[in-house]
Amino acid sequence: MPSLPTSLPSQHPLVDGRTASSPLVRAARGERSDTLPVWFMRQAGRSLPEYRASRAGTEMLDACLDPALASEITLQPVRRHGVDAAVFFSDIVVPVLLAGVDVRIVPGRGPVLDDPIRSAADVMALRPVDPEVFAPISEAVALTVAELGSTPLIGFGGAPYTLASYLIEGGPSREQLRARALMRTDPQTWATLLNWCADVTGAFLRAQVLAGASVVQLFDSWAGSLSRTDYQRRVAPHSRRAFDALRGLEVPRIHFGLGMGEMLDLQRGLGADVIGIDWRLPLDEANERLGGAVPLQGNLDPALLTAGEPLIARHVADVIERGSAAPAHIVNLGHGVPPDTDPGVLTRIVEIVHESGR
Amino acid sequence: MPSLPTSLPSQHPLVDGRTASSPLVRAARGERSDTLPVWFMRQAGRSLPEYRASRAGTEMLDACLDPALASEITLQPVRRHGVDAAVFFSDIVVPVLLAGVDVRIVPGRGPVLDDPIRSAADVMALRPVDPEVFAPISEAVALTVAELGSTPLIGFGGAPYTLASYLIEGGPSREQLRARALMRTDPQTWATLLNWCADVTGAFLRAQVLAGASVVQLFDSWAGSLSRTDYQRRVAPHSRRAFDALRGLEVPRIHFGLGMGEMLDLQRGLGADVIGIDWRLPLDEANERLGGAVPLQGNLDPALLTAGEPLIARHVADVIERGSAAPAHIVNLGHGVPPDTDPGVLTRIVEIVHESGR
Repeated sequence: MPSLPTSLPSQHPLVDGRTASSPLVRAARGERSDTLPVWFMRQAGRSLPEYRASRAGTEMLDACLDPALASEITLQPVRRHGVDAAVFFSDIVVPVLLAGVDVRIVPGRGPVLDDPIRSAADVMALRPVDPEVFAPISEAVALTVAELGSTPLIGFGGAPYTLASYLIEGGPSREQLRARALMRTDPQTWATLLNWCADVTGAFLRAQVLAGASVVQLFDSWAGSLSRTDYQRRVAPHSRRAFDALRGLEVPRIHFGLGMGEMLDLQRGLGADVIGIDWRLPLDEANERLGGAVPLQGNLDPALLTAGEPLIARHVADVIERGSAAPAHIVNLGHGVPPDTDPGVLTRIVEIVHESGR
Repeated sequence: MPSLPTSLPSQHPLVDGRTASSPLVRAARGERSDTLPVWFMRQAGRSLPEYRASRAGTEMLDACLDPALASEITLQPVRRHGVDAAVFFSDIVVPVLLAGVDVRIVPGRGPVLDDPIRSAADVMALRPVDPEVFAPISEAVALTVAELGSTPLIGFGGAPYTLASYLIEGGPSREQLRARALMRTDPQTWATLLNWCADVTGAFLRAQVLAGASVVQLFDSWAGSLSRTDYQRRVAPHSRRAFDALRGLEVPRIHFGLGMGEMLDLQRGLGADVIGIDWRLPLDEANERLGGAVPLQGNLDPALLTAGEPLIARHVADVIERGSAAPAHIVNLGHGVPPDTDPGVLTRIVEIVHESGR
C-alpha cells in the first residue's frame, strides 16, 4: 500500500461543513430533508451539447486529465439541470492509466488494453500507485468544489471486479469469461490483481475526497455476471478494501452494481451507506430485502427517457412513492444516461422531483 | 395465424417411438434413466474445426437454409462428442428472414437490420408467415433425424422478446432501451409485434417438430434486462403463445433465459416442461425455488471450460450433485459454447457425465 495522508486539510468541506446540510449528503446519511435529492449517473457527458463542444478534438482520457476541462464538464449538468450533486467527470480506468498501465478508450467501444493482464507475471509487474500521480485529479476537484458552493461533489471509482475484468479481457466483454476463469484457475493471482485494483481505485476515491468530494460512489458494471457465491468469496472483500482506503474520511459511500438484486445484503456488507438499485427491481422490494435499514438510490428506467412527459412523470411519481419506503432516497436513473438522451427531459425530471415536495 | 397441420405424419418419431426412451426425452418428461443426458447449447458451431471447414465460404444464413449443410453441421457434435441430443443448427432470425424481413448476420456482431422495425406502421407491414417457407428447414430436419436413429433432435427458436429486440434495435444491444421504450409508449404495437414474433418462431418450432424434432427449446437471451413485472405482463403471454403453436404435438418444451433467476416461476407458467438455468444460480437453489417440481437443464459455467481437467471435473461433479435434487436433470452449459472452446474439453465433459453413473 502506498502511504496516504490520514488527516484532512483544514479547508476540507467536511471540516467547514460546506455541503453537510445539502439534501444529498443528508439523504446519504439516512436523514430526510424538504427537498428530495436527484442526480443522474453519467450526467456529465455525451447527452449535453455543451459537453460535446468542450470535448471536441480532445481524447476522452486527455479530457479526464485536463483539470480545467474535467472541472468544466463536471459542472455543466449542475448548471443546466439544477441537480443536487455534481459527479466527477472521469472514467473508471483513469487511475489505472495513472498507475502506469497502457490503456486507451476507443470511442463507441470503451477501455481497451493492447496487452491484457492475464498471467501471474503480468499481475506481479503491476506497481503500487503513487498518490502524487493524482495531482491533476485533485486540481480538477478543487476547481470544481470552489464553484459548487453548497452543492456536493460525488467522487467516482470503478469497483475492483469491473476494473479487473477490463484488464484481463483487454476490453468490454459480455460475460467476463476470461476474468472468471482466472478467478478459478489461479485464485492467488486473482486476489493479488483485485487487491491492486482496489488500492488503485481506493487511492483515486481518496484523492477526490481529500480535494473536496463530499460523497463517493463505487460502480460495479459487471458484478451481475457473477453467482452470489463468487461475488461473496472472490469479489466483495476487494470492494470492501477499496472503500477502506477512505478510512478516517467520513464521507458517505454509495455502492451501485448492475444486476445485483439478489446481492443487496452483500453490497451492504461492503460498508456502503447507500445502495444504488438498477431499473429491474422496484425500490420498495429492494428496501424490504434490506430490512428497511439502508438509504436507496435510483432507479428510473433509462428506457423511459424517450417516452414523453406524461409517462415519465407517472414513472417518476411511482419511483418516488416506492422509494418513500426506504429510510432515505436519492433519485437517480437505474443506470447511466444514454448518450442520445434529450437533456431537456433530464431537466424536467429534476423539476418534477423537486416539486414532489417530500 | 396461418393454418397449420394438426395431425402428425404416420412416420413421425412421436408415433414410431424412435426417441421416446432416450435419456434426454425421458429426463425432459421428468423420468430418470441410467444415463444422465448431456448436450451443449451452440454445440453445433464455431468451436468445431469440421464446422469451420463446412461453413468456409458460406454466409451464416445461407448455411442455415442449405438443408444438406445445416444437417451436416447439426450432426457434427453428435458424432464427435457423443452427446445425448443434436440441436438443430440455425439462428433465431432464420424464421424472421423466411417471413420476408430483410435481416443479415454480421460476423462478430450478430443479426442486423438496416431498416429496424420501430413504428406502428412498420409492425402493421409485417405479414403472417406461410408454413411453406419452412421447406428447407423441414428438409434439413428430416435428413438429420434419418441419421440420428434413437438420438433426439432438439428444435430451436428465439423467444419473442429477444426476437423483437433485434427487430426494434436493428442489432444486438446491451439493454434493449428502444425495445423497452416501445413496450411503454405503444403497448398495442408492442403486443402486435410480439405476437408476430411468437407466431413466426412458433411456426419455426412446429416445422421442426413435424419434420422429426423430439424436443424444443425456446431461447430468451435478453429477458434478464426486464423487471419481473414487465416480463410477466408484457412478455410472458407472447412466449406462451410461441409454445402454444405446438398444440397437438406432445413434445417436451425447454425454456432457457439468461438472468432469469428471479423469474423461474414465470418460466414454468409458460408451459415449459424443463427450465434451463444459467451459470449464476446453483441448481439446488433453482430446484427449491420451483418447489422441486420441474426438471432442470444446465448449468456448467462456460468460464470453467478453459480451467483444465481437475477443476472442470470437480465443477461437473458439483453441478450433477446439485442437479440431483431436481425431478430430472439434463446436463448442459449455463450459456452457449464460447467460440474459442477446445472441443476436446466438451468431449471429456460428456465422458465425465456419462461415467457419473446416475
